[in-house]
This record gives sequence, structure tokens and C-alpha cells, in this order.
Amino acid sequence: MLTEVLPTPERVLAAARQCFSSNGFHSTSMKTICKACDISPGTLYHHYPSKEALIQAIIAQDQERALTHFRDPIAGEELVDYLVDSFLQLAKEDQAQRALVVEIMAEGMRNAEVARMLEEKYQAITELLTARLSEAREAGVIGATVDLACAARLLLTLNYGTIADAEALARNSNDMFTISLKNMLNGLLQINPPA
Amino acid sequence: MLTEVLPTPERVLAAARQCFSSNGFHSTSMKTICKACDISPGTLYHHYPSKEALIQAIIAQDQERALTHFRDPIAGEELVDYLVDSFLQLAKEDQAQRALVVEIMAEGMRNAEVARMLEEKYQAITELLTARLSEAREAGVIGATVDLACAARLLLTLNYGTIADAEALARNSNDMFTISLKNMLNGLLQINPPA
Repeated sequence: MLTEVLPTPERVLAAARQCFSSNGFHSTSMKTICKACDISPGTLYHHYPSKEALIQAIIAQDQERALTHFRDPIAGEELVDYLVDSFLQLAKEDQAQRALVVEIMAEGMRNAEVARMLEEKYQAITELLTARLSEAREAGVIGATVDLACAARLLLTLNYGTIADAEALARNSNDMFTISLKNMLNGLLQINPPA
Repeated sequence: MLTEVLPTPERVLAAARQCFSSNGFHSTSMKTICKACDISPGTLYHHYPSKEALIQAIIAQDQERALTHFRDPIAGEELVDYLVDSFLQLAKEDQAQRALVVEIMAEGMRNAEVARMLEEKYQAITELLTARLSEAREAGVIGATVDLACAARLLLTLNYGTIADAEALARNSNDMFTISLKNMLNGLLQINPPA
């Protein structure tokens, strides 16, 4: 297995992801995770003292991936296509990875600690996305009256809805879906607004 | 308790909703549900032979609520405000009810039977919503090139993202959020499109 060559913390996280994704957060015990990556409980607790610590580390990985996606400036005229493409890519993502994102969302609805972790992730992503939108506005692409932070948060909201519904959208993943999404974002960002 | 005057199946469903919402689907046993509504296992299994049967009944209740919302024609010029208002109302919904919707979404990501139930619900809602959009197009409000089924599905996607993120949106629930959402829907539905 490829994961066997990873350092222990990464190997544990990969196993935890798989267990949480298949069986949910509550039905997965620390013991199950030990078995899945063939380590002792002592080693597991040394790296991750609780299931919450594992979730925190998984959220941090997901956050880093999202931040990487928006770290570099995007040319204003390419912004909407870049965003639309980000949504389309979700449908191609690993099913287990998407299931885990929704599982963590569900946990965040009833566990204040997880809710706080998720909110930190959302804040970090919307902050970076707002910076990208701000550059596009300076380039004259985005309408002057758009509330950029609000638009960034709505893009995130649509993103998480899409993760949960990606397979259905993939079935419709034709030109019409791309066009509809583009119309939606053009409206949100007031690109080529009516005179 | 109010629920004590309900007929048994409704009383069981109310208890199941509460248990699933607080502890998740997997951590809730049929026994826990029996205790929560003070009935015997025999009575529970008579009405709902499995946890899946309970989820199916909960999904059917949620579906009926959504369908009620879109059953009557909406005057074309009021359509976007009606939709925006539907999104804003989500933030005011009971937290436990929203948590349960996300919990069922998470279950649908790993349980094919639940995925099928959800897809049936989504199809029923988008079908009715498409009928409303179609009337608005006949009234000349929605752009002629919009794919109505695709637009309806994207509205549903945004809706489910909003359910998971409703509290954050409620914190920002100011005029800017309403305007941003309205811009997004105007774009999607090509209302007052640029010449």
C-alpha cells in the first residue's frame, strides 16, 4: 500500500478519513482507526489525543487544498471561468472524500467544537477568495456595488451544496449546467451588468 | 408534551427526528427511539421495520413541506423575491431540523438506499419548481435561453448549502446578503439580462 510509506501522522489521517467516510464519525472508534493503519493505541493517542483532534487535522488538510486553489492571482477576465471550473471539478472528486466533507458538516451541526473548526476554515477560504475578487474589481471586471465578502461566502455555500449533490450534477454535466452556473456567478459578481 | 397527543406513527417520527439530529443516524438504536417516545419495540417495528424506513418517512415529511412551498403559482415579477425569501427563512429554521437534513445528506453519501430516497425527493421538488419557473418564463420574466430544469437543480443545490451554513448567513443577514442572493438568482434566471 502506498500509505505505508507515509510518515505515521499522515498514515493515521488517511486511515481515519477512510473510516469516518465509510461509517461516520460516531460509529468509528479510535480502536478501529488503530486497526485500519496497524498502529498501537499509544502511537495513535500520541499523535491525535481525540477524534476531535483527528477531525481538526482533516479539516486543516481540506483547508490547505482550498487555499492552494485560490493563492495565486487570477486574471480578472478569467475569474468566472476559473470559478465555474472549480465547481465542475467537484463532480470528479473522489466520492469518499466528498462524503467525508458532508459527514464533517453534519457533525458541525451538533458539535460546537467542530462548528468552530469549520468556521475558521470558511473564514480563511473566504478571506483569500475575497482578495481574488478584490483584484478582479480593481481590474474593472466585478461590479462596483458588489459586497465581496458576502459574494465569497455565497460561493462557498454553493460549493458545499455542490459537494453533496455532485453526482447528480455530473449526470447533467453538459453545457447547460456550465452555462447556468456561469450565469449565476455573472449575476452574483455583476459582471457585464445591464446599463 | 404536545407530541403525546399525536397518533403513534407521528409521535415515533418526532422522537426519531430528535434522536437522529442529536446523535446521528448510526449512534441511534431502535431501542433508543422506543425509549424516547415510550413505546414497545413491537409497536415501533410494526410502524417502521427499520431505521431506513424511519429515514424514508422523515424525508417524505421534508419533501411534502418543500412541495407545499412551491405548489401554488407565483406571479412572475415576484418570483425572485419569493425565492430569496425562501433562502432567508432557512436561517430562521430550527437548528435541530437543519442538522437532521445535513445528517441525512451525509448518510446519503454512503448508503445507496438513502441516496435513492433523496434523489426521489430532489426530483419531485425540482419538477414542481421547474413548473413555477416555466410559468415565469411564459410571463416573459425569465430569459428564453435558460435551461429551467438545470436552474431548478442549482437552486436546490444552493438551498442545501445554505441549510448547512444558515447560521453564518444569519450573522450576515443584512441587506447585502439579500442583494447578493438576488443578483445571483437574477443572473441564473437571466432576469433583466444585459441588452
